[in-house]
Amino acid sequence: MPVQRAEGRQASALRPTALLPSWVEAPLASVLVKQGATWVLCTVSAEERVPAWRSGHGRGWLTASYSLLPGATPVWSPRERNGAGGRTREIERLIGRSLRAALDLDRLGERTLHLDCDVLQADGGTRTAAVTGSWLAMALATRELCQAGQLAEDPLVEQVAAISVGMVDGQARLDLDYSEDVRAETDMNVVMTADGRYVEVQGTAERSCFARADLDDLLDLAAAGIAELAAAQTEVLHGG
Amino acid sequence: MPVQRAEGRQASALRPTALLPSWVEAPLASVLVKQGATWVLCTVSAEERVPAWRSGHGRGWLTASYSLLPGATPVWSPRERNGAGGRTREIERLIGRSLRAALDLDRLGERTLHLDCDVLQADGGTRTAAVTGSWLAMALATRELCQAGQLAEDPLVEQVAAISVGMVDGQARLDLDYSEDVRAETDMNVVMTADGRYVEVQGTAERSCFARADLDDLLDLAAAGIAELAAAQTEVLHGG
Amino acid sequence: MPVQRAEGRQASALRPTALLPSWVEAPLASVLVKQGATWVLCTVSAEERVPAWRSGHGRGWLTASYSLLPGATPVWSPRERNGAGGRTREIERLIGRSLRAALDLDRLGERTLHLDCDVLQADGGTRTAAVTGSWLAMALATRELCQAGQLAEDPLVEQVAAISVGMVDGQARLDLDYSEDVRAETDMNVVMTADGRYVEVQGTAERSCFARADLDDLLDLAAAGIAELAAAQTEVLHGG
Amino acid sequence: MPVQRAEGRQASALRPTALLPSWVEAPLASVLVKQGATWVLCTVSAEERVPAWRSGHGRGWLTASYSLLPGATPVWSPRERNGAGGRTREIERLIGRSLRAALDLDRLGERTLHLDCDVLQADGGTRTAAVTGSWLAMALATRELCQAGQLAEDPLVEQVAAISVGMVDGQARLDLDYSEDVRAETDMNVVMTADGRYVEVQGTAERSCFARADLDDLLDLAAAGIAELAAAQTEVLHGG
Amino acid sequence: MPVQRAEGRQASALRPTALLPSWVEAPLASVLVKQGATWVLCTVSAEERVPAWRSGHGRGWLTASYSLLPGATPVWSPRERNGAGGRTREIERLIGRSLRAALDLDRLGERTLHLDCDVLQADGGTRTAAVTGSWLAMALATRELCQAGQLAEDPLVEQVAAISVGMVDGQARLDLDYSEDVRAETDMNVVMTADGRYVEVQGTAERSCFARADLDDLLDLAAAGIAELAAAQTEVLHGG
Amino acid sequence: MPVQRAEGRQASALRPTALLPSWVEAPLASVLVKQGATWVLCTVSAEERVPAWRSGHGRGWLTASYSLLPGATPVWSPRERNGAGGRTREIERLIGRSLRAALDLDRLGERTLHLDCDVLQADGGTRTAAVTGSWLAMALATRELCQAGQLAEDPLVEQVAAISVGMVDGQARLDLDYSEDVRAETDMNVVMTADGRYVEVQGTAERSCFARADLDDLLDLAAAGIAELAAAQTEVLHGG
Repeated sequence: MPVQRAEGRQASALRPTALLPSWVEAPLASVLVKQGATWVLCTVSAEERVPAWRSGHGRGWLTASYSLLPGATPVWSPRERNGAGGRTREIERLIGRSLRAALDLDRLGERTLHLDCDVLQADGGTRTAAVTGSWLAMALATRELCQAGQLAEDPLVEQVAAISVGMVDGQARLDLDYSEDVRAETDMNVVMTADGRYVEVQGTAERSCFARADLDDLLDLAAAGIAELAAAQTEVLHGG
Repeated sequence: MPVQRAEGRQASALRPTALLPSWVEAPLASVLVKQGATWVLCTVSAEERVPAWRSGHGRGWLTASYSLLPGATPVWSPRERNGAGGRTREIERLIGRSLRAALDLDRLGERTLHLDCDVLQADGGTRTAAVTGSWLAMALATRELCQAGQLAEDPLVEQVAAISVGMVDGQARLDLDYSEDVRAETDMNVVMTADGRYVEVQGTAERSCFARADLDDLLDLAAAGIAELAAAQTEVLHGG
Repeated sequence: MPVQRAEGRQASALRPTALLPSWVEAPLASVLVKQGATWVLCTVSAEERVPAWRSGHGRGWLTASYSLLPGATPVWSPRERNGAGGRTREIERLIGRSLRAALDLDRLGERTLHLDCDVLQADGGTRTAAVTGSWLAMALATRELCQAGQLAEDPLVEQVAAISVGMVDGQARLDLDYSEDVRAETDMNVVMTADGRYVEVQGTAERSCFARADLDDLLDLAAAGIAELAAAQTEVLHGG
Repeated sequence: MPVQRAEGRQASALRPTALLPSWVEAPLASVLVKQGATWVLCTVSAEERVPAWRSGHGRGWLTASYSLLPGATPVWSPRERNGAGGRTREIERLIGRSLRAALDLDRLGERTLHLDCDVLQADGGTRTAAVTGSWLAMALATRELCQAGQLAEDPLVEQVAAISVGMVDGQARLDLDYSEDVRAETDMNVVMTADGRYVEVQGTAERSCFARADLDDLLDLAAAGIAELAAAQTEVLHGG
Repeated sequence: MPVQRAEGRQASALRPTALLPSWVEAPLASVLVKQGATWVLCTVSAEERVPAWRSGHGRGWLTASYSLLPGATPVWSPRERNGAGGRTREIERLIGRSLRAALDLDRLGERTLHLDCDVLQADGGTRTAAVTGSWLAMALATRELCQAGQLAEDPLVEQVAAISVGMVDGQARLDLDYSEDVRAETDMNVVMTADGRYVEVQGTAERSCFARADLDDLLDLAAAGIAELAAAQTEVLHGG
Repeated sequence: MPVQRAEGRQASALRPTALLPSWVEAPLASVLVKQGATWVLCTVSAEERVPAWRSGHGRGWLTASYSLLPGATPVWSPRERNGAGGRTREIERLIGRSLRAALDLDRLGERTLHLDCDVLQADGGTRTAAVTGSWLAMALATRELCQAGQLAEDPLVEQVAAISVGMVDGQARLDLDYSEDVRAETDMNVVMTADGRYVEVQGTAERSCFARADLDDLLDLAAAGIAELAAAQTEVLHGG
């Protein structure tokens, strides 16, 4: 029988989640995501140009970055100043692909959106929290640009959120915290649209290879969790 | 109706595949994988030490690297000499995780296996060809170490192979070549054991998000393709 | 006559300031400093070893890092991943020297304290806010280590805080915000002990060289501001 | 009572100082500064363009670099080839700010002056010697450009020199050599104009925090020393 | 008396040599050179532009790169990802100079030829094999560009090949393999034209300094070996 | 007929040459070499340890570095701070090989000699001047170590000097200055012992390939020039 989850959480339950919009006011838009003790600050900044190799075609661009603060975990980690590490690059590419799937870059015009995710405190699931928060920050940003008359049409074309799932002690669980993540047999990150289509599926055997049935269970759990997160995004964006 | 595949290939067919063992003889083991016009040279080298942070525990280590030769594609690409790019790091991490899943590092002793994959010619599916070839080179290497009396017990614990699948023109296809890869709606890399369990599943919506039914079709195709590749590995390793 | 300050602030007044202890709980200690719209998260992490070149002498070590989040300002700034820039290095050296002046490294034992300052939102005076907050986080950290029995004697030997002052429109002002900073004729950062001795004085002519009388006025303002900040530190540390 | 200074020097005396103009002839202008055993070669080169981000506005630019030769000190130091270290960057920023304060970049036209300081031999006070020598080299360079008809009006607007002062054994001293620098309680670098206004004041508590009275003494000493150095600059520039 | 050469080779004999054209087909041209157990894959790619600093003058450019695969030798070597090492840079400069000597860059037009040499297996003489193979690949490439109508006149102006020679056990030998190279007293790389003029001569005393008579013997051996290699190039290019 | 040389110099004449020992006194030994307007400062520093991979065998080590000051030429060149360039690395390797040929590292004990060459002013032939000056500085350094009792036996085993030669306007010339170097058809650097054996021969066709007869002429010129330089070294070392 699997070890119980912290605070008596059900296998299919999300951690307490808050999406705090406009948490800092300097950038165009920001969201502080709190998912249990995982806190990620997502900011969106706009720049009125695109990289040189892309300019002159009237199309926009989007960059995504991710960083773990040195004190975000009980064990200190140094800043990545001689190039980002492999894990960081992998996460940034995941965030970038996920958010580009939600955006029509043609409608954005020759403009770059910079999505920057800083993990203020890490307790598992930071990359999926970053996707969920970044999408909301991006939605706030494009709405702001529309209202300011800088965009004729909102370039947002999909609503996207993400969650981690995993097999722990032989049990499929939603939204792993760090203590579960390190002993999971299988770890999966899923990015989906609000209407249930897939943007990314990344499953990895950590301790033992997994069967098709496990995969199916994990995908079911993820779909339910993402539906909840999408509802929370909608509530912030459009009110109760 | 989907555009036909090159050389009349069926949606569920692999490209002509060859696994050439001992293609170069300088390293401990080597395999040249040819999968259509994708050619990857996989070498395994052993070093009788592990990184400093890992030494003193009697356990082994495995590193994986991947590199595209500058002339491997019709469009030239510069060497990655100021740090590997994000795509390369992502691929190296995938190869490393896949092969570590096949190896019992405890049995390896304080020794490092270096797996190095060089793409001599690229026509899609280089990362999965690298996994399939590296596994075979690693199996040849550990057998060699056993025969030379350097290992008491073969540390190989799983047989692993990999393939790419994707939705092209609405059709699920096995083993995409480059021309298919660039217009695929969805692209998925799957790493499995010879007995059908998953090591890695990485699916990405490239042009449109995908439904659960598509995902299921792609996983079915991948399982069949990987079974064929595993048979080819076995034939090289143990004869006809 | 000088232009008025934002929100009717007096030339000798600090911005509204809050020192929020234990704002994140993953690291050994943390303080979120809010000085107007300048928000800096200061964390302290302990590592039970010192750099190799310093080990074996029973003495401790302290590192300081500083980083501006990409979205901390209205104009986006990229992460410093190919080495920290000159401004960042200069700030890190200032923070490091200031905090080492407050600490008896011999009493710390063979242990490293990592002080990491992340500017979540920037509106001028980030480096001095980082010093004030880091000192408080360090005081919380060493008290914690004492209470846990890891330190026999508190290595804290000085109480240190910092503030910026400057000549704006010919007037000496305390605690410049960004709008004042960019048009200041002279900019000065002062780090002092709670009892009024200097740790660092860094004055720079930005638009015009300054006279001894201006320097004297600025030092007077700084001393008064630092006394207020030291009182706020004490209140957090020892209660009202 | 403080330990005596080398060669019976008074607390308020500079070391024997020589400013040797046109010491090398390849660059536009050069000065070899000898201040005791501290020898710094300062060269000025002009480039008929400014960085891309600055071009098109008709204004000039100035860069400053500083480097310690590997054999400049009894203990060998490696060349800084993987990015300049924090100390070097800090010094370069100080030199750059000090010389920009002396120059009207508008009058320089779209042209860059490169100021490069190489420490051939180091015995304390290298950064301030670099400022004093660089100013003289720059004055020679702009005069040369005026005489060659490349500049209509000399862009030089201030005369600038620099010196280090410090508290050693409780005594305020001018122009510390290395043996004094390492045991100074407080170390201060001062950059001033020939008519006694401040460009930079950088004071640091090295061994103990310092009082306002010490600061006042140090500033008095520095002012006198800088007046002497400015006279030496003038003598080279305009003759005896 | 000198130790005998492997496989009874004469002091003046080349190792068995094969020049395999179009070995990979993705790039514009390719040659796999096999010289004994030294195998180098040389590819040529064309890019329809030149570096920015060179554009607008109607002249071409040529880059050369060289890389040893990690498994090319019995002892593993890591990839050079933080900048190429000194040996690699030196070899790349040699290849680049040698091939630029064979090419009229004016006739090439505003186009870059990238020559990339990857050592698949190394047993001595890799840099000279790279020159010999790259020249042939370049000749195939420019002929291809002429036939495709992209070049009016073939820019190839010299035929160039290269070989290593050395003093081993006091005997002058042609085309050293690795076992000879490591114990050679003197090692020399010679690049010549098909009609016997020099492009590069690089001789190095490895174990003892060498006399003029030794130098003369080595140059005679090299000339004969290069004549053989040039004949092999011609045979591939123009048939038997 | 060839253009005349500057200052009526004969084709076989060296430029006025001075070898100034102990020019700076901070390092163990130093020599300022002046060869016409080429000035190179060569310093030798000793460190009482060898790199980790070499320690424990009782043998010494030698490193060589080379750097062109930014203002050493009329056209400014930036400092090499993101890794040394290919030309610099090539020169450093040449200096290192040349000086290691002159030294018995076994006799040096577990000690590193650092040879650092800084070009204060460049007018052609900087790398060969660096070899000639470094050898002399090294001879002064090992004599000093012997006299101080730190070495039982002088590890110097060869006397080494170097010169450049080249074909200019069809004429073989000794010791090219920059104006000759840039228009030379062939450029050759030769390093020899005082008794006429070769350490390095590096000849490069710059504008046209060269015949054996040219090579022979150049080698004759170089031998005579190096004999003169060796005599100058001896005079400094052992007096008139």
